[in-house]
Amino acid sequence: LAHRCHHRSTAMLDVPFLPFCAFLGTLGLLCVAMVGTWCQHWRGGFSLDGSSRTFNWHPVLMVTGLVVLYGIAALVYRIPNTWSGPKLPWKVLHGSLALGAFVLTVLGLAAVFRFHNSQGTPNMYSLHSWMGLATVLLFSCQWVAGFGAFLLPWAPTWLRALYKPIHVFFGSTILLLSVASCASGINEKLFFSLKNGTTAYKLLPAEAVFANTLGLLILIFGVLVVAALARPSWKRPDSDSPDSRQVQDALGG
Amino acid sequence: LAHRCHHRSTAMLDVPFLPFCAFLGTLGLLCVAMVGTWCQHWRGGFSLDGSSRTFNWHPVLMVTGLVVLYGIAALVYRIPNTWSGPKLPWKVLHGSLALGAFVLTVLGLAAVFRFHNSQGTPNMYSLHSWMGLATVLLFSCQWVAGFGAFLLPWAPTWLRALYKPIHVFFGSTILLLSVASCASGINEKLFFSLKNGTTAYKLLPAEAVFANTLGLLILIFGVLVVAALARPSWKRPDSDSPDSRQVQDALGG
Repeated sequence: LAHRCHHRSTAMLDVPFLPFCAFLGTLGLLCVAMVGTWCQHWRGGFSLDGSSRTFNWHPVLMVTGLVVLYGIAALVYRIPNTWSGPKLPWKVLHGSLALGAFVLTVLGLAAVFRFHNSQGTPNMYSLHSWMGLATVLLFSCQWVAGFGAFLLPWAPTWLRALYKPIHVFFGSTILLLSVASCASGINEKLFFSLKNGTTAYKLLPAEAVFANTLGLLILIFGVLVVAALARPSWKRPDSDSPDSRQVQDALGG
Repeated sequence: LAHRCHHRSTAMLDVPFLPFCAFLGTLGLLCVAMVGTWCQHWRGGFSLDGSSRTFNWHPVLMVTGLVVLYGIAALVYRIPNTWSGPKLPWKVLHGSLALGAFVLTVLGLAAVFRFHNSQGTPNMYSLHSWMGLATVLLFSCQWVAGFGAFLLPWAPTWLRALYKPIHVFFGSTILLLSVASCASGINEKLFFSLKNGTTAYKLLPAEAVFANTLGLLILIFGVLVVAALARPSWKRPDSDSPDSRQVQDALGG
């Protein structure tokens, strides 16, 4: 009886992958819409003139690229359709989405560097900037190494097998560093922008509630993507995975 | 040949658990020592008088409790010694370490609330405070639910089996939220403290380099603990784990 109850109770926690993805996609779109609304409605909108309206591209591009599009790219191999048939189209999709995320990220960096330079503000002094740049540097290494090992034809099987768990580990790590960077960046921007009078950050005006909520939603998005990536039953059951290898060994496979 | 190479290459990545723990313990101690040094050497030390010297307990207690001691508590069941023999002593150890972490965390909250109240500063307006309080509230639910389900004798097996993956998921999530909160808090404190003259944050004085480095080390500590928790081969091979259940089923167990 205990055994049957145990199976029933764990089955109750089985979330189907596709409805989970629909929820996650909605949450990601909400984050993008909210960061755009924040910059448009409260921070003066967007331009390329080096003013704070140029800076406004920074949060929008980072949340869109390094959080939401990156998260979508990371989840490609969890789609059950990718588990059979030729791998190459899915690899190309994964690499292309990640490249798109990377391009948005670099444009997001360009926006903040252009803003600082035109204002005479030094670059790269805050913990936010250190974390953020470390995240982007790791992401660039991740993309180049992934392209070299998995998409170019010359990499031997042993090298792919050696590198794959490293690629998977850094895939989740980069997303977590990215959402932590977003949280510190939103916090810092609100302290910069909401300084005086009735709109001081500490008086919690509507903008502060809105952007604080955005920060929490970004954290939830990141945690849910990493949890989905780590979930054993959603992983592609192939010979590279230690879990399925245990099962194969047990089966004498 | 490819098969043998594959096994050899994944074996090359096998890190032994205990040396990893020794490294992680050293890193955790370094974080505690550095946050103490920051507050003592640059921020004026510690007191209970409601001044910024009272605030200084906040980062020290949070890093010590909600990051380092919490991380140690989370890793208890990864020690191979806990996998055989009676579970109860290890449960008591896990719960006691987590309770110690929780007590330090509550004292850390008390320090910042006392500082704000004695200065007339509002509480709970920044994204840092929202993230941090959400983390502590999740931690308190986690501890109470864990105590009720796993340490009190009345919980039925099906309830324990239902709750265990939830407890494990929130165990990692709370630590990630905690290190993200630390990063935003260090960033915010440096903007508050390093304002004028030759010590402005943007001029990157020694204190800024030191505390930025501390922030990165805390992030690395959190990511490594979560990675260790997620690693399949370091998990207790018991009947509650989906991985080992697959193997048992395959073995006809």
